[in-house]
This record gives sequence, structure tokens and C-alpha cells, in this order.
Amino acid sequence: MRRLDSRSADFQSQLAALLAFETSQDPDVDARVAAILDDVKARGDTAVVEYTQRFDGVAAQTMAGLELTQAELKAAFERLPDVQRDALVAAAERVRKYHEHQKMASWQYTDEDGTVLGQQVTALDRVGIYVPGGKASYPSSVLMNAIPAHVAGVAEIIMVVPTPRGERNDLVLAAAFVAGVSRAFCIGGAQAVGALAFGTQTVPAVDKITGPGNAYVAAAKRRVFGIVGIDMVAGPSEILVICDGTTDPDWIAMDLFSQAEHDEIAQAILLCPDENFIGQVAASIEKLLPSMPRQEIIRASLTDRGALITVKDLHEACKIANYIAPEHLELSIATPEVYLPELHHAGAIFIGKFTSESLGDYCAGPNHVLPTARTARFASPLGVYDFQKRTSIIQVSEAGSQKLGRIASTLAHGEGLTAHARSAEYRLKD
Amino acid sequence: MRRLDSRSADFQSQLAALLAFETSQDPDVDARVAAILDDVKARGDTAVVEYTQRFDGVAAQTMAGLELTQAELKAAFERLPDVQRDALVAAAERVRKYHEHQKMASWQYTDEDGTVLGQQVTALDRVGIYVPGGKASYPSSVLMNAIPAHVAGVAEIIMVVPTPRGERNDLVLAAAFVAGVSRAFCIGGAQAVGALAFGTQTVPAVDKITGPGNAYVAAAKRRVFGIVGIDMVAGPSEILVICDGTTDPDWIAMDLFSQAEHDEIAQAILLCPDENFIGQVAASIEKLLPSMPRQEIIRASLTDRGALITVKDLHEACKIANYIAPEHLELSIATPEVYLPELHHAGAIFIGKFTSESLGDYCAGPNHVLPTARTARFASPLGVYDFQKRTSIIQVSEAGSQKLGRIASTLAHGEGLTAHARSAEYRLKD
Repeated sequence: MRRLDSRSADFQSQLAALLAFETSQDPDVDARVAAILDDVKARGDTAVVEYTQRFDGVAAQTMAGLELTQAELKAAFERLPDVQRDALVAAAERVRKYHEHQKMASWQYTDEDGTVLGQQVTALDRVGIYVPGGKASYPSSVLMNAIPAHVAGVAEIIMVVPTPRGERNDLVLAAAFVAGVSRAFCIGGAQAVGALAFGTQTVPAVDKITGPGNAYVAAAKRRVFGIVGIDMVAGPSEILVICDGTTDPDWIAMDLFSQAEHDEIAQAILLCPDENFIGQVAASIEKLLPSMPRQEIIRASLTDRGALITVKDLHEACKIANYIAPEHLELSIATPEVYLPELHHAGAIFIGKFTSESLGDYCAGPNHVLPTARTARFASPLGVYDFQKRTSIIQVSEAGSQKLGRIASTLAHGEGLTAHARSAEYRLKD
Repeated sequence: MRRLDSRSADFQSQLAALLAFETSQDPDVDARVAAILDDVKARGDTAVVEYTQRFDGVAAQTMAGLELTQAELKAAFERLPDVQRDALVAAAERVRKYHEHQKMASWQYTDEDGTVLGQQVTALDRVGIYVPGGKASYPSSVLMNAIPAHVAGVAEIIMVVPTPRGERNDLVLAAAFVAGVSRAFCIGGAQAVGALAFGTQTVPAVDKITGPGNAYVAAAKRRVFGIVGIDMVAGPSEILVICDGTTDPDWIAMDLFSQAEHDEIAQAILLCPDENFIGQVAASIEKLLPSMPRQEIIRASLTDRGALITVKDLHEACKIANYIAPEHLELSIATPEVYLPELHHAGAIFIGKFTSESLGDYCAGPNHVLPTARTARFASPLGVYDFQKRTSIIQVSEAGSQKLGRIASTLAHGEGLTAHARSAEYRLKD
């Protein structure tokens, strides 16, 4: 695993090279996605079924054959072993409780002229949530996408999840049942994004599509952005651990593994001022790696994109963390309260040695759909606010229109927009 | 101007045809934009200066020659006629006051196990605001983009504004001074978007780019989305007026003009249950049009994309309005309180006959950068919240890690993610 030192003369360029990653703008992928989207728009169900047969190897001949009924979702939930069912319900409950705090409310105020100004908050009518299948199936993604929409008051939640070779995952179906999904289709890829964006004979057109997917899904979301809303273009998962050297090195190694096991291109980085501890973590990595079922993925990820970085002190670690703006940031130190105020850019911060990132992935409460690839500089975790929107409310009183009309008229004439000016002037009494 | 009637058998398809508008995905525009962005990324200042010379016809030889100093902004403000300066300051003050209501605050709570969960809100570090020049220069856009960023606490606000043939607009420069812009460059188009997204030797890279522009700007914003944040891909401006027939028809005609004068492809639509009143508005349009300086633009817009629509009643008008999800919605009726609750999708609602849309454009307080092309189904006006972002905070107590660790372990094993499970299990005591 790569070892870097912040005191190297070329550290900044090494770091930039480590982080460099172009998301989903491969021209080949983009061209194939564009063709699929056009086809889905033109041929609807027929096109989606054909692509699903071809890419996912499913036998269904119609879209109806790819829809999951509420009874099927419920049956999957009831079929689960008790321990899984209880875990799912407990996780859903905590996620729901946290997200209730995110609900936005409408507000308004009246100014001195009796003019009312405000903001009306409403839920989206219908949303689509994309749940990855393929390499790994993620019931937790169902909870993390559907529950915020449900809390926001979205009337219809349409789930899509690819089922390669027709294999349906009971935990995914059960999660859809627990989270309040309205309809679910066993489709994925660009064809599923197209079906949700344009609508087909069977799949209703939605107002927004959320949830992570592979490069095809990301490219398709980018293309339909504007026709529908999207949450973000997700890149590979990342974890940045800041450790003071007081946490068990095995714990830190496993925390790094927990992102690396997602994908060969996932990124796991450790920042630590203690060179000796970094050596211990490196030893733990070698010791523990052979015991991991996904050791090949983990090794590829750590070798190609991982790094153990020696820093001057924890303040410098915070500065580097702000530059990296990681999806997941573990602050595995004894005095987090000293350093937390220095951290500005991260999707989620996991504080203290008992907060492994994986607790947040499943059940702590906050969302696990988080901004990747340095986008935490400007983006936020998926939340209830992604399923609500605001409308400005302006009710100008007759008195207010006299004062505002003069200001608007002056500025409109200054912009050469006579109709704007005159429509304000019409409301003036003299 | 087109006359439609909601009772026609094919009304829904007529309406869909009227609204159909593909935003900024012209493949030619997109290819040219891609080439410009690549060039700006590779050659920085040199490329931006060359494109600016070529497209804007400016003489500057260096990027420094295209930067506006704070002294120049201040001088422009001081040069303004008193009435314009006062109007600008009054508008800025009202916009600032309204936007103060939008500031998000951090929050957290502690659960029964002592686990702390919350959301930390921080401002973006540096943003770019795009201010259109060209056909019309918009000082109000400077206020509407820069003030929310300033209220959010963004440390650096970088403005770009094209100055065709080197013509600088004092009102635009003065607005930048009033709104708290940090640096300003006389550049526009895709090259300006590229400079802000990638940074050049002179223009610092920003974290997000906001503000409307033409098709090239829109295509460039779509392409850099992910490297930086963007607000939205703006389409042509729109107004939908719902009138009960009690407002002066001249006022309604002028309100329709006030969007139509922006652009030949702007859209102005009236919904009214009173056929006779619609005839009066049509007469007002013909009477007033010859007196408008921008009558050719207005006529093209009204003819090609406008419509006067007879509806069954005002309840039906609200339903149609929700389908259209207009950027600007005027509710020019005597009893707006009855119908407001029925309206769910609009960028801004202008209530009562004294609230001309133009008052909102300049000085009522709310933002005039609004979702267009039916995106109000899922998008919101530009606001302070666009310049803040959230980070999830998770600090699991030792007691909490015992409970959460078991749930996470169960679900992680269910997803086949052993490292996730084991990193939670390491924190368990037994």
C-alpha cells in the first residue's frame, strides 16, 4: 500500500494524483447510454424489456412480468429469518427518526407595508429510486433512498432494481416493504433511468431520480438531468480515516477494508501523525487481508487507490481532509471536540473510535448516500430536503406596490426592459 | 396569439405541444462547448483570452486586462444617477432581508444511549456567479446570485460577465459592489464556465457555479456538473397568469409582455374562465404592442409560444398550472386564499392584482433565479441553501456501539460485505 508523507516537497501533487478520478464521462459509455435513452423514449416498455433480457439475462417477456407486487414485497419480508427482519425494522426506525429532523417547513412574514413574503414547501409528487443489484445487492440503499422520500411526503415512490439472471434478493424486497415503496420494477442500468425519466406504458414518469449506480447509470442520470431532478452523479466510495494512534490498528485496518471491499476503484486513505502506528496498521492490513472473502477487491483498491499518509499533526490532517472533502471521514481520535470545528468538507463525519463507518452505513440514522469525489465541497448527503422543494410567495399590498413599483421601474428601465417597467408602473396611483 | 380551450377533446396534447422544449442538448452546441472546455482546461488564461477576443470582440491581451478591480466597481456605483443608486441599494436591502430567512442552522440530538447524531451546516468556500450580458445586461441578476452567497457566508464570490465589444455596464458593476462580489472578470460563454470550474492562472477554481446564461452556458454547466456544483440548467423564461377576469386587461397584457420581451422563445400563457375577458386581453395586446420598444421580440414570443386559454373554472386553472409548473405564476384573482392551497408546483407565485411579476424580478425580496421548463416539479428558487451544504455528524457512544453493531453486522452479512460486518463487530465487547 502506498505510503506518503506530507513533508515531501511534492506531496501536494502526489495527493492530487491520488485523488484524480474522472466520473462517468467516458465518451463510449455516454454514446451507448444516449442510444439506450432515445430507444426507451421512443419504444417504451418494449425497449426496456429487450435491454433487460439482454443485459440482465432475465426471461420476462413483458414489463408486467418485471413488476413486483406489494404482496411479493410483503412475502419477502415475512420470509426473512427473525434476526434479519428485526435488524431491518430497527435500522428503518432509526433512519426514519433521524430524517424527521430534516423536514423543511413553509414560512412567511409581513413587512411594514402589509406585503406578505414567504416560502411554501411542498413534496415532490413522484420519485424514482435506483437500487443497485449486480456485484452486491444493497437493501440498506432501499432504506436510505425511500425513507427520506416517504418522510418528505412523496405520494408515489417507484423503485427499480436490476435482478441479474432473475435472482431476486429477499432483503431488498423486504426493505422496499419496510420503507414504503409504492411500486417496484426489476430493471436497472440506463434503460431503467430512461423508463423513470420519460415514463413508459407501464412505468410512470417520475419527477426526480435518486440513488447510486454504475457508470452507465451515472451517465444516464447526467443526461436526463433537467427533464427530471437527480440527486448527484455518484463516484466510487471513499473513506478517509484521521487517527491519533490510540485506536486498535486492527480496527483501523478493517475500517479501511470496509470501503475498499465495495469496489476495486474505491478509495481508502489514512492520515496519522504517528509513523509507528502507520506501520502497525500496515501490518494489520497484511495480517487480516487473507481472511476477507473479498480480499482480491480489497487488495486492488488499497494498492491502486489507497494510501497511508504521515502528517505533521492532527491540525494538518484536518486541512488535508478539507482538501480531499471525503465521502466518509472517520475522526478516530481521543479528543475529537478539539478538531471537529476545523473540519468543513465531508459527506459524513464518524466521531470517536466506537463509530465505525459501517454503523452509519446501516443503522445509526443519517443517510449513507453521500457526496463522493470531492463534491462534499458543495454537496450534501441525500435527505428529506431532496424530496421537497420551495416556491416563493409574494403578495404585495396596494401600499407596497407604490414603493416597490418605483424601484422596479427604475431598475427595469436601466436594463432596457420596458414591459417590466410599465407593468410595475400600471400599479402606481399617480 | 394562440387561443386554446380546456374543453377541446385534444386539449391535453395541445398543451403538451405548447410546452415542449428541449433545453441545451443540441449536439452541435454540446460538441463546441466540449472543445472549448478542454481547451480552457489545457491552456488556461491564454485560451480564455483568445475566446473572449473572438466571441466578445474585446481588445484585452491578458486576463489581468479582463479583471475588474474593486475600485472600478465602486466608481461605477458612485457614477450612477441618484435614483438608480437608491433603487439598487433599496432592492439589495430587501433581497438580503428575505434571504436571511433561508439560512440553515446546524442541529444535533442525543439518543437514549448517549449517541450524538446531527447535521453540520457550512458555507461553500468559493463560488462563481454567471451574469448574462449580450442581448440585455442584468444588474438584478448580480444581486440575485451574489446576495444569497454572501448571506450564506461564502468567503469568495467570483463574478463573470461578458462585455461584448468591451462595453461595461455601470449598473452591473455597481450591483457587484453593492452585493459584495470579491472579484469580477469580463468573460462569458463556455470559456467563462470552464475558467471557473477548472481554474486558470488568474481565475481561481470555484466550488459551484450559479446563474442563468444562453445555450452555450447551459451546456457548459451541464458538462462541468460534478467537478463543481451548479444551480440548474436554465431554459427560457416563462409566465403563467391565472386571472378571474377582475384585473384590468391592460395590466394582464403588460404582465404577459414582461416575460415575452426577454426572448423570442420565452413563454407567456393566460388561463381564465371568462371568454369575454380573454377577448379584452387580446385587444389590449394588439393595442399596446406597437408602443413597446421590444415589440418584435414580444410578438415572436407570443405568436410562437404564447397562448390564451379558456378554462372551465379556477380550480381547473390550478390543476393545469400544476402540470405546467411555471417559473412565474401570477394569481391575479380577487380571492387568492381560496386557490393558493391548490397550487403545488411553481418557481414563484405572485398573488393579487398588485403583485406584478416584475416587482419580484427586482425588489420584492425573493430570488428571481427560478426553475424553468417544468422543473419546478422538483427544483426550487436559487437561495442561501444553494450556498450552504450539510455534513452528517455521528458520534456513537460505547453503549450505542453494542446495539448498533449487532444490527449493522446482521445487515452487512446480508449484503455479503464482511469487512463492514467485522468492523462493527470489533467494537462489540462480547
